[in-house]
Amino acid sequence: MEYIKNAWYVAGWSSEFADALCKVTILEENIVMFRASNGEVIAMEDRCPHRLLPLSRGKRIGDTIQCGYHGMTFDCSGKCVRIPGQDNVPKSAYVETYPVHERHNIVWIWMGEPELANVDDIFDLPEFTDPKWHAHQGEALHLKSNYLNVAENLVDPAHVSFVHPTTLGNASSENVPVHVSTKGEVIVAWRWIRDSEPIGFFQNFGGFTGNVDRWHYYYLHLPCTAMIDFGSADTKLNLPEDERDKGVRIFALHFMTPVRSDYTIDRWMHLRNTAVGDDAASKQMDAMFKVAFAEDKEILEAVQQEENRPQKRRPIRIAIDKGPNVYRKRIRDLVEAERTQDLGEPIAPTFVHHE
Amino acid sequence: MEYIKNAWYVAGWSSEFADALCKVTILEENIVMFRASNGEVIAMEDRCPHRLLPLSRGKRIGDTIQCGYHGMTFDCSGKCVRIPGQDNVPKSAYVETYPVHERHNIVWIWMGEPELANVDDIFDLPEFTDPKWHAHQGEALHLKSNYLNVAENLVDPAHVSFVHPTTLGNASSENVPVHVSTKGEVIVAWRWIRDSEPIGFFQNFGGFTGNVDRWHYYYLHLPCTAMIDFGSADTKLNLPEDERDKGVRIFALHFMTPVRSDYTIDRWMHLRNTAVGDDAASKQMDAMFKVAFAEDKEILEAVQQEENRPQKRRPIRIAIDKGPNVYRKRIRDLVEAERTQDLGEPIAPTFVHHE
Amino acid sequence: MEYIKNAWYVAGWSSEFADALCKVTILEENIVMFRASNGEVIAMEDRCPHRLLPLSRGKRIGDTIQCGYHGMTFDCSGKCVRIPGQDNVPKSAYVETYPVHERHNIVWIWMGEPELANVDDIFDLPEFTDPKWHAHQGEALHLKSNYLNVAENLVDPAHVSFVHPTTLGNASSENVPVHVSTKGEVIVAWRWIRDSEPIGFFQNFGGFTGNVDRWHYYYLHLPCTAMIDFGSADTKLNLPEDERDKGVRIFALHFMTPVRSDYTIDRWMHLRNTAVGDDAASKQMDAMFKVAFAEDKEILEAVQQEENRPQKRRPIRIAIDKGPNVYRKRIRDLVEAERTQDLGEPIAPTFVHHE
Repeated sequence: MEYIKNAWYVAGWSSEFADALCKVTILEENIVMFRASNGEVIAMEDRCPHRLLPLSRGKRIGDTIQCGYHGMTFDCSGKCVRIPGQDNVPKSAYVETYPVHERHNIVWIWMGEPELANVDDIFDLPEFTDPKWHAHQGEALHLKSNYLNVAENLVDPAHVSFVHPTTLGNASSENVPVHVSTKGEVIVAWRWIRDSEPIGFFQNFGGFTGNVDRWHYYYLHLPCTAMIDFGSADTKLNLPEDERDKGVRIFALHFMTPVRSDYTIDRWMHLRNTAVGDDAASKQMDAMFKVAFAEDKEILEAVQQEENRPQKRRPIRIAIDKGPNVYRKRIRDLVEAERTQDLGEPIAPTFVHHE
Repeated sequence: MEYIKNAWYVAGWSSEFADALCKVTILEENIVMFRASNGEVIAMEDRCPHRLLPLSRGKRIGDTIQCGYHGMTFDCSGKCVRIPGQDNVPKSAYVETYPVHERHNIVWIWMGEPELANVDDIFDLPEFTDPKWHAHQGEALHLKSNYLNVAENLVDPAHVSFVHPTTLGNASSENVPVHVSTKGEVIVAWRWIRDSEPIGFFQNFGGFTGNVDRWHYYYLHLPCTAMIDFGSADTKLNLPEDERDKGVRIFALHFMTPVRSDYTIDRWMHLRNTAVGDDAASKQMDAMFKVAFAEDKEILEAVQQEENRPQKRRPIRIAIDKGPNVYRKRIRDLVEAERTQDLGEPIAPTFVHHE
Repeated sequence: MEYIKNAWYVAGWSSEFADALCKVTILEENIVMFRASNGEVIAMEDRCPHRLLPLSRGKRIGDTIQCGYHGMTFDCSGKCVRIPGQDNVPKSAYVETYPVHERHNIVWIWMGEPELANVDDIFDLPEFTDPKWHAHQGEALHLKSNYLNVAENLVDPAHVSFVHPTTLGNASSENVPVHVSTKGEVIVAWRWIRDSEPIGFFQNFGGFTGNVDRWHYYYLHLPCTAMIDFGSADTKLNLPEDERDKGVRIFALHFMTPVRSDYTIDRWMHLRNTAVGDDAASKQMDAMFKVAFAEDKEILEAVQQEENRPQKRRPIRIAIDKGPNVYRKRIRDLVEAERTQDLGEPIAPTFVHHE
């Protein structure tokens, strides 16, 4: 499987990195990470250049890592600063390092050429720091499926009617067409379901009893960040499409980390414009999200298993596939561009300026 | 591994198919099956042509299956009758279906070109419906071995002396030569052991105490059905070979379903000319068969493991291999004939007209 | 993975072989072994030439093995002496046999051309039978790592400072250079650490409290036998290098058996010049060795896993690698010589004539 290298990926929540050496795998590369004495998160190739032992099995000594086999020691820049038993250190004694940036309790890592890394390209939203909004960190969903399948699911409003009939969708949306915009950097798929019974999520949260107008806007930022803006408002309000903040509005964020060709970690969290500071509400929503994401996991892993089997004919594509199709094509084109060295500019800032 | 496609295989006992969707794998193809409202068993390709999700993970709605991902819905003919979110249904939206036929509580499936399926070709025996005979359904033996090894074992009277010394064979048969007939459609291997101690099976069942004449006739019907006619009679009767019905006579049937190149299901049952309607006798015989088949399983799986390892020299063939050799050659020839499109006629009726 | 075939390998301790058939795997070959009625250990190809069933699943009858499938029977020379159901035995009905030699309770097997086997080439030491020395058999360490990695670790005194800091090494040896001699048949790597704190092993065993002079001599005999001569003496004695017998001296022996390309068994034992006949001392030492070898296992298996992953650049070699480098080159050259049929002489006697 090929990946876009020149991009920021999520390595983990800030809480996952402390003094101890930890091993993460991203784009099939093993990386040792730790929080240095100045608080910065460090990421280095997790393999001693001598006998290949993962450095994560070694010992941290100050801000250096000592290999657990013969004691070769590397500083945070990847340079070898000690080889026991000899005085000189050859130039080939080093490990690769990765640019890391931490923001809003999320640790991002740049997997491509270090000189192209630009922290302004990292996904961001003003609501992260807006006091009228509440940010709540969720958990990490481990999926035995490749990231393209996972991402595709996150620009696909149509599946919720069938995969999540008790939480995020219900029968009233089954036949509502999906709008797709692929003009900008961000692929957007959305639909409104007006004057219908509230979905399970908003029966439990938001206290809706009568009919509502509800919306789903799926924003997919290449390569691996999805934001789903969804919410409900009393049908009597007849809410205009660009006044969604007047309803109960939630941004569900998904940060996908491609681990291997058949393994993806989806770290999820949400921002909401209601119940600010209300921990019980956060817990209630996490519980509902977990039900829904377990449903996705089952589907996405089954699809991966089928993709691993022989194909007799090409899969068909249907109307709702416009977003996924454009996503896959863009990924293919970017991978090809990197492969052919025609790198051009790194991916431009892609956080959405939603209404 | 290659298989003969234009043939009937056993998909399961009738009792295995009910309202619920169930997934079976035959010749490495995944198939979703269920019993429709008219009682017929339906078999369809277990993969939605859109995003490949197995339809067996979907939902049955009347006599249609709704895919669990985006709700595409297929009727029993494999035709897509609904794509949520759009009005037109493209011609490419379909799944393959398989001819199915049920007889004597056994569900047969045709794995090749549907127009060649002919239910008259399905294995049958008059004894299934003969009131002087008792038919008793056994169980399913799952073998991590390819079907050629399993079938070979079922046209091989010689192995019972060594593999089943306490149940189906004993030392007195070790050196008795095996006769083989390969003239007709059915490969037959047989031997008589006259005036010897009864085998364990007929010590427990049949009440023989003195010496017996006993026989084993192995009939192998291509591709995957075996019938073993075995029995015993008091030596004093000096039973002619064609009057076996005067002894205690059992037809052990084996329906092999090739699942994958290293996996075969062997559904077994028996017909007998004694103890008609006697459930205790059925249970006693099942218990003895299970001991014997567990012994086969151990051998056949070990052989498969060895076949997966490198070979330094060609295996040798010995006198008793005539039946297996002809079987393997016929299978190879039929597979090759299908591969080269020189299909000729489908396999002719092969149920044995035994004496 | 390629192996040197024309060499003696350890098949097991003498205690591992008795009347019952047992299966061992060496150099990826499956071998059935048993102790014949005359006490000799027999080793034969563990695969019937007919249907490939491992003979170890058969039955021993006197000094023959009867295959568990059709009763073909082989004597200790590998010759087939019976094929049930036929009188003639074709020449192709045989299994390979392997020369075996037992000495000091160790069973050696020759994996190459039988006519080249010479028991004088088997590793030996006079101390095995010297009454001033005590031989104690240890256990078998199963390592998911190829034998080259395991052997390399046994000609590498430098790793003990980092891998075994509480048992076989400590910080005072970290920077002491390693001497290597590769002139003779045996590769030797050694170092002395003078006037330093005793290592954990000799704090527990030997009763050293003050500073000691200590040594490590690693002798690696191709292809797969290692002897580590290590010990300690009171610093006040100022022990000359060639009078190590005046200190507490231990020969740790490692017999590596390459099972598969990623699996090696390391049978370990020791000889010592002290506590002769003292079982409690033996147990105490075994306990310490087990701690150390578990540390090696963790490292060696992690290295193997990394070797199985893609390599972006060639590993670097450092000063302490001289022994391992020469070892790997010699193995490669011998494998190549066998491959090209330029076999020359079998490996000459390689047991060390230590001082």
